[in-house]
Amino acid sequence: MGSGEFDLISRYFAPLTVRGGAALDLTDDAAVLTPPAGRDMVFTKDILVADIHFFADDPAEAVARKALRVNLSDLAAMGAVPLGYLLALALPKNMENREKWVAGFSAGLKNDQNIFGWSLFGGDTVSTAGPLMVSVTAIGTVAPGEALRRNGATAGDDIYVSGTLGDAALGLKCLTGDITPKNQNLVDRYLLPCPRLELGQKLAGIATAVMDISDGLAGDIGHICGLSGLGAEIEAELIPLSGAAGKVLESFPLYKDLIWTGGDDYELLFTAPAHMADDIKELAKKLDLPLTRIGRMTQEAFIVIQDKNGSNLLHGEQGFRHF
Amino acid sequence: MGSGEFDLISRYFAPLTVRGGAALDLTDDAAVLTPPAGRDMVFTKDILVADIHFFADDPAEAVARKALRVNLSDLAAMGAVPLGYLLALALPKNMENREKWVAGFSAGLKNDQNIFGWSLFGGDTVSTAGPLMVSVTAIGTVAPGEALRRNGATAGDDIYVSGTLGDAALGLKCLTGDITPKNQNLVDRYLLPCPRLELGQKLAGIATAVMDISDGLAGDIGHICGLSGLGAEIEAELIPLSGAAGKVLESFPLYKDLIWTGGDDYELLFTAPAHMADDIKELAKKLDLPLTRIGRMTQEAFIVIQDKNGSNLLHGEQGFRHF
Repeated sequence: MGSGEFDLISRYFAPLTVRGGAALDLTDDAAVLTPPAGRDMVFTKDILVADIHFFADDPAEAVARKALRVNLSDLAAMGAVPLGYLLALALPKNMENREKWVAGFSAGLKNDQNIFGWSLFGGDTVSTAGPLMVSVTAIGTVAPGEALRRNGATAGDDIYVSGTLGDAALGLKCLTGDITPKNQNLVDRYLLPCPRLELGQKLAGIATAVMDISDGLAGDIGHICGLSGLGAEIEAELIPLSGAAGKVLESFPLYKDLIWTGGDDYELLFTAPAHMADDIKELAKKLDLPLTRIGRMTQEAFIVIQDKNGSNLLHGEQGFRHF
Repeated sequence: MGSGEFDLISRYFAPLTVRGGAALDLTDDAAVLTPPAGRDMVFTKDILVADIHFFADDPAEAVARKALRVNLSDLAAMGAVPLGYLLALALPKNMENREKWVAGFSAGLKNDQNIFGWSLFGGDTVSTAGPLMVSVTAIGTVAPGEALRRNGATAGDDIYVSGTLGDAALGLKCLTGDITPKNQNLVDRYLLPCPRLELGQKLAGIATAVMDISDGLAGDIGHICGLSGLGAEIEAELIPLSGAAGKVLESFPLYKDLIWTGGDDYELLFTAPAHMADDIKELAKKLDLPLTRIGRMTQEAFIVIQDKNGSNLLHGEQGFRHF
C-alpha cells in the first residue's frame, strides 16, 4: 500500500466504517467483530471486472452499488441479514480522475450502506496495469439451521421467481445500442439490481431450494436440478415480464430468449411444495413483490422451457441438460 | 460464472473445502458458519496483482501460498487463529495452460491449508483482459478483547521485531538480477513469507502495539507512531539480519537501506514496556524465533534510524516524519 493509497483510504473509506465498530477505523491489520449471539454467519465473495461485469465508463457510484448489491443478492439467496463487507479495489495505473472516481465510488457505497443497514469492515486498494476490478466480501447472519440452500427440491415442487425476468439483459442491449430507443427503466435494472433480502429472510420454512438468478433462468435452474438430481418444466408464458420488457420485445421479438438466458436480474428463484401456494401468495402481498409460479420440478433430469404449443424453447446443450 | 469456471471450481476448489463444513461444498450462494463459542471473529482482505505483488511467471503454487500467507500474516498481527478463507481469482483471457496453472494453484492452497489448519469457505472465479489477480479474505478468531492493535504504544516502550529483516527485499533483487549470484534462501523468503501466527497468539498481555512488516520497517513503524502520536528511535546496528543477508550486503553495500525500507518480510513489529523484556526472551526461546529489541518509542514525533555514529540513516520525507 503506497502512501497515495493510504490517503484515499483515510479520506474516502474510513468514513464508511462505524466508529468503535468492527473496522477499527481501518487503522489495523484486520477487523474484529463479536458475532451476534445465537446467529450463524454467512460469507460470500464476488469479483467484478470492468468491461466484463460493468462498463469502465459506468458512473463510479453505480459500480459501487452494483458490486455491493450482487453480493447482497447472494446473502438474500441464503435468507441472511447483511452485517458488513470488506472491499478490494484494483485501480488502473495512470487512471484519469482517480480521486474523483474514488469519491463517486465511496458515495455509492455510502448510499447503499444506508439503504441496507450495513457498513465497511476493511479491505485493500492496489494499482493494476489492467482493467478496474472490485471485489466485495459480504458478511451476514442467519438463524441457526435456517440458511436457505439450493439442494432441497423434490419432484413435483412448484418453481417460483420473484419480480420480473429479462429486464437487465434487455437493459444491457439498450446500453450496447442493439435496442433503440434506450429504455431507462431497463437500463436501471441492469445497472442497479435489487437484492431480494426481505423475501429471502421470509422463505425459511416455505421454500425447499433457493438461489438468485445471476446467469439467467435456464442456467440457474440447472444448478437446483443438478443438486437434487431432478429436472424442471417451465412454461414460457408464465415467466413474469415488466411492462417495459413486454413493450421492447414487441419491437425486438428476436431477443425473447433473453428472458430465460439473460443474466443480471438478481431475482430469487425458488421451489416450494404445492401446499405452500397460499403462504407464498400472502408473502407476495405483504412484500408488495410479485412471486410467480412458472413451472414445476420433474423426476426426469431434463430442463424444458415450453411455449403454449408444447415445443421446448431451449436449444442444444443449454436446452437438454443431462446430469 | 461461465460453465468453464464452474468446472474449474468443482474440480480444483471444491476438494479444498471441509465436507459438511462452512463452504457447503461450494454449491450454494454463500458459506454458512456457526461462530466458535466465546470467540471474536477477525476479518482481513488483500488483493495481489501479477507483476506488482508477484511475477506472472512465478510458480502457481507459490502465488497461492503467498496470497494465503500475506493474509495469515494480518491475522498473526491481530493475535488471531486462522479459521477459513474466501478466494477470488481473475484469470487472464486466453491464458496459456490455464487448467495447469489452476491445478498448481490449488495444490499450493492445499499445502498451506494443511500447514495452517484452515480451509476454503467460498469465492469467485472470473476472466479478465488484464493481469492475473488473487484476492483472499481471511477469517480468524481471537479471545474477546484480546485482539492486538497498532495503537497502544507509550513513550519509552521498547520496539521489537521477530526473525530477520531485509531478506525478502534482497531476495527480490536476486530475482530481478540486480544481485548475483542468486541466493535461494533470500528468494524463498520473498516467495514464501512465514506468517508469525504462534507469536501473535502469545503477544496478548505482553505487547502494547503490534503490526506485520509488509511495506518495510521505516514505513510501518510510522503507522504505530502515527496512531499514538509518538516517535521512534531505532538503532540500525540492532536490526537482526540473516546470515545470507549479511553476506550479500558485504558484496552489495548499496542495498543496506533495504533492511529498513524493503517490504515483504512479514515479520511482526511490536512495542512492549521494558519490564516485559524477560517474558519476551522466554517467548523467543519457547517459539525458537529471534525477538530482537531494536529501539524505543519516543515522545518526540520523529522516526530516527541511527547508525553507531548517531547519524540518522533515513533521508528526506521518509526520514523525518512529522505527524
